Amino acid sequence: MCALINPPTGVPVFDAKDGLVTAVVQDAATGQVLMVAHMNREAWDETLASGRAVYFSRARGRLWRKGEESGNTQLVREIYVDCDADALLLKVEQIGGAACHEGYKSCFFRQVTPDGLKIVAERVFDPTQVYGKK
Amino acid sequence: MCALINPPTGVPVFDAKDGLVTAVVQDAATGQVLMVAHMNREAWDETLASGRAVYFSRARGRLWRKGEESGNTQLVREIYVDCDADALLLKVEQIGGAACHEGYKSCFFRQVTPDGLKIVAERVFDPTQVYGKK
Repeated sequence: MCALINPPTGVPVFDAKDGLVTAVVQDAATGQVLMVAHMNREAWDETLASGRAVYFSRARGRLWRKGEESGNTQLVREIYVDCDADALLLKVEQIGGAACHEGYKSCFFRQVTPDGLKIVAERVFDPTQVYGKK
Repeated sequence: MCALINPPTGVPVFDAKDGLVTAVVQDAATGQVLMVAHMNREAWDETLASGRAVYFSRARGRLWRKGEESGNTQLVREIYVDCDADALLLKVEQIGGAACHEGYKSCFFRQVTPDGLKIVAERVFDPTQVYGKK
């Protein structure tokens, strides 16, 4: 059976190679899975301290304070750790109603079907109106 | 904006380094997040062909047909791909009522609290009775 490395503090086990844990983000009210992101230790600490979701962007190689550009921050209501302590589940209140930078509530807005991917959600906002204004 | 590499087929973008995508697994009926796992191309293909969840176990370095030891297979009802196409959301019917090898319905059975981790679920089965019998 897997063991939690840091049970008293609840600190997850960051990957030995890249220093990250996977974070699944779920709408606290509806249970909809909004996105998957990653945290390093700094992002984890700041999330706990601020109550707002902070990730580590692998693409940008830096801390990513969710909503820093769009204003669509995530207020963290509950955090869970999985059995291996290398994945987190965050239940959040999504400000602005959309987690995805493509303008959808969830990043999982496309379903795999026998005919290929099918968009199964409506856009909440137009990305061209939210990003790139600065 | 991020682009899907393989829109016609719906094949996700496997990581260039380790060949994996992250898979979030959600109970199709209740919306509870059950676990996080990974798939390589072989696991993906077999999942689509069989309708049962197949992952790639990083710890064991091989395909992991979920439930192969416990019998607790996952019948895949729907699959979604995220905006970057490097994460999947599987909605499944969890046979046996528990996804976690620790005997809990969800691997996320511990909540982060100011006093450390707190177990917030009841065990569905006793792991010592399910594993290691062969």
